Amino acid sequence: MSSHILTFQCPDRAGIQAAVATLLFNHKAFLIEVTSHSATNGRFFSRSVFAGDQGAILNIEAIRRDFAELASKFDMEWELVDTSRKVRTVIAVSKFGHCLNDLLHRWQLGVLPVDIRAVVSNHPDMRALTEWHGLPYVHIPVTKETKAEAETAMMRVIEDHDAELLVLARYMQVLSDDLARKMSGRCINIHHSFLPSFKGAKPYHQAHERGVKIIGATAHYVTSDLDEGPIIEQDIERIDHKASPDDMVDIGRDIEARVLARAVRWHAEHRVLQNAGRTVVFR
Amino acid sequence: MSSHILTFQCPDRAGIQAAVATLLFNHKAFLIEVTSHSATNGRFFSRSVFAGDQGAILNIEAIRRDFAELASKFDMEWELVDTSRKVRTVIAVSKFGHCLNDLLHRWQLGVLPVDIRAVVSNHPDMRALTEWHGLPYVHIPVTKETKAEAETAMMRVIEDHDAELLVLARYMQVLSDDLARKMSGRCINIHHSFLPSFKGAKPYHQAHERGVKIIGATAHYVTSDLDEGPIIEQDIERIDHKASPDDMVDIGRDIEARVLARAVRWHAEHRVLQNAGRTVVFR
Amino acid sequence: MSSHILTFQCPDRAGIQAAVATLLFNHKAFLIEVTSHSATNGRFFSRSVFAGDQGAILNIEAIRRDFAELASKFDMEWELVDTSRKVRTVIAVSKFGHCLNDLLHRWQLGVLPVDIRAVVSNHPDMRALTEWHGLPYVHIPVTKETKAEAETAMMRVIEDHDAELLVLARYMQVLSDDLARKMSGRCINIHHSFLPSFKGAKPYHQAHERGVKIIGATAHYVTSDLDEGPIIEQDIERIDHKASPDDMVDIGRDIEARVLARAVRWHAEHRVLQNAGRTVVFR
Amino acid sequence: MSSHILTFQCPDRAGIQAAVATLLFNHKAFLIEVTSHSATNGRFFSRSVFAGDQGAILNIEAIRRDFAELASKFDMEWELVDTSRKVRTVIAVSKFGHCLNDLLHRWQLGVLPVDIRAVVSNHPDMRALTEWHGLPYVHIPVTKETKAEAETAMMRVIEDHDAELLVLARYMQVLSDDLARKMSGRCINIHHSFLPSFKGAKPYHQAHERGVKIIGATAHYVTSDLDEGPIIEQDIERIDHKASPDDMVDIGRDIEARVLARAVRWHAEHRVLQNAGRTVVFR
Repeated sequence: MSSHILTFQCPDRAGIQAAVATLLFNHKAFLIEVTSHSATNGRFFSRSVFAGDQGAILNIEAIRRDFAELASKFDMEWELVDTSRKVRTVIAVSKFGHCLNDLLHRWQLGVLPVDIRAVVSNHPDMRALTEWHGLPYVHIPVTKETKAEAETAMMRVIEDHDAELLVLARYMQVLSDDLARKMSGRCINIHHSFLPSFKGAKPYHQAHERGVKIIGATAHYVTSDLDEGPIIEQDIERIDHKASPDDMVDIGRDIEARVLARAVRWHAEHRVLQNAGRTVVFR
Repeated sequence: MSSHILTFQCPDRAGIQAAVATLLFNHKAFLIEVTSHSATNGRFFSRSVFAGDQGAILNIEAIRRDFAELASKFDMEWELVDTSRKVRTVIAVSKFGHCLNDLLHRWQLGVLPVDIRAVVSNHPDMRALTEWHGLPYVHIPVTKETKAEAETAMMRVIEDHDAELLVLARYMQVLSDDLARKMSGRCINIHHSFLPSFKGAKPYHQAHERGVKIIGATAHYVTSDLDEGPIIEQDIERIDHKASPDDMVDIGRDIEARVLARAVRWHAEHRVLQNAGRTVVFR
Repeated sequence: MSSHILTFQCPDRAGIQAAVATLLFNHKAFLIEVTSHSATNGRFFSRSVFAGDQGAILNIEAIRRDFAELASKFDMEWELVDTSRKVRTVIAVSKFGHCLNDLLHRWQLGVLPVDIRAVVSNHPDMRALTEWHGLPYVHIPVTKETKAEAETAMMRVIEDHDAELLVLARYMQVLSDDLARKMSGRCINIHHSFLPSFKGAKPYHQAHERGVKIIGATAHYVTSDLDEGPIIEQDIERIDHKASPDDMVDIGRDIEARVLARAVRWHAEHRVLQNAGRTVVFR
Repeated sequence: MSSHILTFQCPDRAGIQAAVATLLFNHKAFLIEVTSHSATNGRFFSRSVFAGDQGAILNIEAIRRDFAELASKFDMEWELVDTSRKVRTVIAVSKFGHCLNDLLHRWQLGVLPVDIRAVVSNHPDMRALTEWHGLPYVHIPVTKETKAEAETAMMRVIEDHDAELLVLARYMQVLSDDLARKMSGRCINIHHSFLPSFKGAKPYHQAHERGVKIIGATAHYVTSDLDEGPIIEQDIERIDHKASPDDMVDIGRDIEARVLARAVRWHAEHRVLQNAGRTVVFR
C-alpha cells in the first residue's frame, strides 16, 4: 500500500493539529501514525504517516498544493515524501570497516531504507567488501596537500549520484567548513565516544585514562564545529577496571555500529527534526 | 496553569484526529501534548493534554458535553480529567517495605502525582514508616480462615476513601477473583520476576536454579489470572554466577521499586490504556 | 609472548589455590590473570592465564604432568591450553544470515579467537557470503525423511575438520538426542528469546501476544532438552506498544548477533565452565 | 561464621599469589572468595575473603604479623579487616534528600554494611527524616564568611565519631583542599552527571542544552580537584527530546541514589582499590 510521510515544524500555537488533520481528512487520507512535540522553546514539531482511506487513491499534488498554503499561514518548514522513495546515500569510510559492514548488511537485508549509491574512502581497504555488495567504491586518497581536491572529488561523487545523505562511517577526516555547510542536516557522523566527553582523537584512550565505568558512542549531524553537531542517538556499554584501551576499542565497535545504524535509519524514515542545535526524534 | 487530559480508544478510522483536534480548537483549547497509536488489531488510542489558549478559561463542561456526542459517533471509551486532580490511592503491603518506602518518598517529594489515602497490610511491620508519613495504616491480618473477611475489610478501606487505585507493593496475598474483577484496570501489582518467566512464588530462587544472566521485575494490572494481567512496565539488571538467591533478592528490590514507581506514575498521569490484554503506554 | 590458560573445577576445600599457585610459581610461571569462584553447591572453579616469568621458557609438558598429579589429589576436571591455539569451529545456519555475518566479520577482524573451518546449512542461501570469506560451505538439505542422514552428514563435517565447537547461528533444526549428547558442552545455540520465557517457535510472536516491554535473546549450550541447556549469555532491548512482531524480529536480530558473538568468544577464550546445568563465566 | 577480608596492592611480579595463598593456608584459612587484577601499569591488586577451615578458629593476630612481613617483602599496601566490623560513616546532605533517604532505607534493611553515626547538613530540612531513623542530625549552616568554621565543625563531627567514611549525599558545598586531603580515599561524592561531561553546577541544564540522549550520574572519591577524583561507579538512563531539565532532574534522582548506594556499599565491603586516579572495583 502506498503511503506518505509529512513532517513539519513551526511556531507553536492553537489550531495547528486541527488544521493539518482536517486538511488530510478532506483529501481522504487515513492517518497511520501521528507524533508531535511541543518544545520548551515554543516550536512545534510533527510527523504523520498517511495513506488513502479504504483504498482511495490520494491526489498527492493537490495535498501538496493545499498544504503549502497552510504551511505558509503557520510559518512551517515542511517535507512531504513517498515512503517508497528511499534516501539516496553515499557512505564515507577510512580503514575501520565495522560500521560499513553493518550498514551494508542491514541494507542487503532490506531493513535499512536507504538507497546506497557509492562508498568513498581515503583508503583502499574496504573495496572488496563494498564491491562484493555490488556497489561502486571510489578511492580518494587524502594528504595534507590534496585535502581540498579530495573534498571536491568527494562532493562530485555526492553530486553525480544526487545523494541526499552522506554517512561518515568512521571516516577519519575532518570535513571543511564549506563541505559541512553544504551538507548541513544531511551528513551523519559516528563519534566513538559518549559526547560531550572525550571530543577529538583517541577517545577510548582518554576514557581509559580517566577511569570511566561506562563507554559510549554518539551519532550526530555534522556541523562546522567538530563533534558539536546535533546529537541523533547515543548508546553505552559498561566496562570495568579490566578493560584496556584495546578492549574499549573492541567493545566500542559494536556500540558505534548500532548507534550509527539507528541514526541512519531514523533519518531515512524522516523521524529526525532539528531544533536549535538539538534533535527531535520521533521513534 | 490549569490543564486537562483527554484519553480515548475506539475502532480506527479516518477523521478521528481531525474531529477531536477541531472540537478542542473550537473550544479555544491549546494542545500541549498529543500522542496516539494505531494498533495492529484495528484499535486507535489517543491521549491529549490541553489548556486554555492564551489564558482563555475553558468551559470544561461544554467540552465534555460535545465530546460525549463525538465519542458516541466514533464508539469511543474515553476519560477527561483535570491534571490537578490526583488519583486517590490505597497501597497494600506485607512485610517487605522497599516498594512502599520508595512510593512514599516520591509522593512526599511531589513527583508521584497520586493522593495516597491509606496503607493496608496483613502485617504490622510497616506501621511506623507509614504513620511517620502522616498516613493511616490499617492492619488487616489474613489467615486461611479469614481471607474472605480480610478482603471485605480491605474493600471497605478502598470504599471509605473512594480510592480509584489499589497498588500491591509486595502484598503477598492473591486477590480473590471477585476483588480482582472489582478492581479491574485499577489495581497494579509488582511481580518480582521478568514475566512470563518464573510465575508464582520464590521467582529469584527459580531464576538462580535456571542459571539466568539477567533478572527483572514486572508491574502489571491485576486480573483473576494470577501473574497474567496486562504488563505496564518491566526492567532488568544483569547478574553473573556469583549471585546467590539472596543477592538476587537484594538486586531485585531496586528493580521492583523503580518498576512499580514508574507504573504507578504512568497510570496516575493517565498514560496507560489497555488493549486486549496488553497496554499502550504513552510515555 | 606465548601464554597458556589453565581451567579447572573440583570440590571446594582449603589449599587448592595455594597448591596451584605454588606449582605454577615453581615452574617459573607468571600469573597474568586469575579468577575463581566458590559456588554455593560446594564446587570450586578457577581460570588462570600464565606465561614464563621474565621471558623464561616454560616447560609445559612438565607443568601438565605435575598438574595431573595435583588434579588427581583434588579430584579436578581440568584443561590446559595454549592461547595461540584457536578452537576449531563449524557454524550451522539456515536462512537468516545476521548471526553468521556478524561472526564472520568479527573473525575476519581478528576479534573472535576461533578457527572457523566450515559453514553447514540446510539451505543454499548463505553460500555466497561464506565463500566470499574464503570458507567452505556445505549444503545439507534436511527433510523429515532425511533428517537422520543429514545429521550424519553434519557430524562428518565436524569430524573431517576435527571441530571442537559447533555454533548454531540460527540453525532452525532441532538436533537429535544423539548429536546433542556427542556435542555436549561444545555446541552453542542462540535462542531468539529471553529464556525461559517463550520457548520453542515464533518467540517474538509469543512476546507480542503477551505484551512484554522487553525482549531478549539467550545463548546456551545445547542439551537434548530443547532450549533448556546451560545459559551462557543473555541480553535485552526495551520495546513499547508500537513494536509489531516484525519490528521485534528486526530488533531481535541485533540482540541475537551480539549475544551469540559474546558466548562464542567467551567459550573460545575458555572462560565458560559448567556447574549443574548453569554456567560460570569468568569475564 | 566469622570471616575476614584481606586487600592489598603492590608491584606485580611472580610468586605473590602463591605466597599469599600459602600463608593463609598454613594458618588454616579457607578462601571463600579471591579476586585479583594485574593492571597495565604494572600494579597488582587483590582481595580475599577467608574464614577458618572447617570451623578452625583463626589466629588473626598471627596472620597479621606474618602478613606484615610478606607485605614488606613484596612492597604491599594492605588492609586486613573483620567482615563484622562495619565502616563508621558520616553522611553530609544539603536540601535534596533522595540519596539520604535511599541510604538510610538500605541501612535500616541491613543491606548497606556501614555504621552510620551521624548526618551533617548545611540546612535543617533533613532533620526529621534522620531523627526518625534514630540518628543524630548536626545542622552546620554555611555562609561565605563561615565556610572555614563550618568545615572545622564538620571535621569535629567526623572525629567525634571516629568516622572512617564521609559520604556526600548531594552535599552542595565544595570541600576545601585541606578537608579533601584529610579525607582522601575516604570521602565519596555523587555528581549528578555522567563525568567527565558536564562538570560543575546545573549539569542537567547543560545536558538539556546540548541535547544528549542519555543522562547519568557518577560516584567518585573526592580530591582537591573538583569532580576529577577516581570514579567508583556510573550509571545512566535514556531520555528523549520530551525531557525538560526538570524531567532530567527527576530521572536523575533515581540514578544518583542507586549509583551512590552501590559505591558506598562496595567501599564498605572493601571492594574498591585505587590505582593512579582510577579505581579497581572487585564486584
